Amino acid sequence: KVGIVAGGGSGHEPFWLGYVGKGMLDAAVVGPIFSSPTPNQAYEATKAVDGGAGVLYILGNYSGDKMNFGMGAEMARADGTIVDIVQVTDDVASAPRDRINDRRGIAGNILVFKIAGAKAEEMAELEEVKAVAENVNANLRTMGIALSPCTIPAVRKPHFTLEEDEMELGMGIHGEPGIERTKLRPADEVTELLVAKIIKDLPFSKGDEAAVMVNGLGATPLIELLIVYRKLNHVLKDFGVKIFRSYIGNYCTSLEMAGCSITLLRLDEELKRFLDTPASAPYFTQR
Amino acid sequence: KVGIVAGGGSGHEPFWLGYVGKGMLDAAVVGPIFSSPTPNQAYEATKAVDGGAGVLYILGNYSGDKMNFGMGAEMARADGTIVDIVQVTDDVASAPRDRINDRRGIAGNILVFKIAGAKAEEMAELEEVKAVAENVNANLRTMGIALSPCTIPAVRKPHFTLEEDEMELGMGIHGEPGIERTKLRPADEVTELLVAKIIKDLPFSKGDEAAVMVNGLGATPLIELLIVYRKLNHVLKDFGVKIFRSYIGNYCTSLEMAGCSITLLRLDEELKRFLDTPASAPYFTQR
Repeated sequence: KVGIVAGGGSGHEPFWLGYVGKGMLDAAVVGPIFSSPTPNQAYEATKAVDGGAGVLYILGNYSGDKMNFGMGAEMARADGTIVDIVQVTDDVASAPRDRINDRRGIAGNILVFKIAGAKAEEMAELEEVKAVAENVNANLRTMGIALSPCTIPAVRKPHFTLEEDEMELGMGIHGEPGIERTKLRPADEVTELLVAKIIKDLPFSKGDEAAVMVNGLGATPLIELLIVYRKLNHVLKDFGVKIFRSYIGNYCTSLEMAGCSITLLRLDEELKRFLDTPASAPYFTQR
Repeated sequence: KVGIVAGGGSGHEPFWLGYVGKGMLDAAVVGPIFSSPTPNQAYEATKAVDGGAGVLYILGNYSGDKMNFGMGAEMARADGTIVDIVQVTDDVASAPRDRINDRRGIAGNILVFKIAGAKAEEMAELEEVKAVAENVNANLRTMGIALSPCTIPAVRKPHFTLEEDEMELGMGIHGEPGIERTKLRPADEVTELLVAKIIKDLPFSKGDEAAVMVNGLGATPLIELLIVYRKLNHVLKDFGVKIFRSYIGNYCTSLEMAGCSITLLRLDEELKRFLDTPASAPYFTQR
């Protein structure tokens, strides 16, 4: 079958290594904390999972990853392995709509892994697996909020500061600046704000179905994510959008950063079917 | 089949509600944050899951829970439902060895749910399910470490203080005082310390097999739990203990407290078999 490879810097656990398994990734390639792996690592992973049907990289559209995985792909191609690449760009806050291809991939990546993985399990061709991954990405949006920073161990101090009563809307998973820094607001208001930004970018129609993810950034406990999910459920009901599947937990973190993100994936019948096929990885199970 | 009920205060998510599902709990009864549910809630849950074979409560040996679940059990018994209770006492730090029955239940509870749930799925009698739960508890030990406090929302300030460079060994999941407050030490040393306390309390022999859990208290990211697990693996290898199954993640939290606990369960053939039967709950899957 087509091999699926993803990766990037460490510090986002269980992202990526927790998603290697049947129906998901075939390999995860991880570098040091918040730093790309080397071209050679990408090359070795590619060779390890190539069964002759080619290999698809699912990446987060970060420049270091693009360069190093790109070089790894070139090395594998020189050996005769077919490699193609999909860049996930779900983070609405990382670039405006007219530069949508500059956006970065964050928690939404996991739903791309799930669906591309399901397609690959059906022994689809590389171009078909790529097409479904791109279809997921086109219907996928994430907005996050940071409540406190994290500290990269080698640096030994927080890599940005937020006052006790502040939050930053749209901050990236490596502390990339967001859209707006505001006073702390209640979870319900934050949820409305995040969903409004997503829906403005990717319109939903009454009767649409969605997969939703409420992702913790590392230091935010599940009880708070459940409070966000409760409001998300109400907000989507008001929009007439039906939740087909929900994922609530720490899926893509930033060391001990506090905060969360909301991901919406607009579904069609094919995407629904692929979401529901079995998958079995250490930190993602679909029964 | 025998119904299995667990519960206590909220604030420990995904403990308990995340473990309701096939092969685990039949109901979770939760109160406000860090407070017991009412007798009436316990009673309603008991009636809801009673299929005629009786109901087993698996509790954490906290006085409020004992009282309220005890009254709920009495109310259900008055209706003719058979109810029995197992108290889990895995927290080594919560009382010395000569008062072992005063100890409290923490993360180890989840392994009791898994194994008792598997026994109940086999249509065992209530007394048999209780016996296997007690066998798990007799072979189960947990030691935790707190690195930062949490804030109960209604109180609006941290419910204890720890300096930036301090840690508390054996602190309970509601901030109950531990054994010792010391300077912060590296993860490897902390791991050795926690395992030493457990092994002193529950001796292992060369060749023994164990299920191990590295549990995050809420604000500690998975990458740090994996560092602890790495050392735990080495330490147990040195003791000649084989890891049969491992569970690494946020299983029993204390709001946004930072820190972790290590749980060891000494296994026999029966316990190994029950650990490996399928289970399917929102936050616990065994394939």
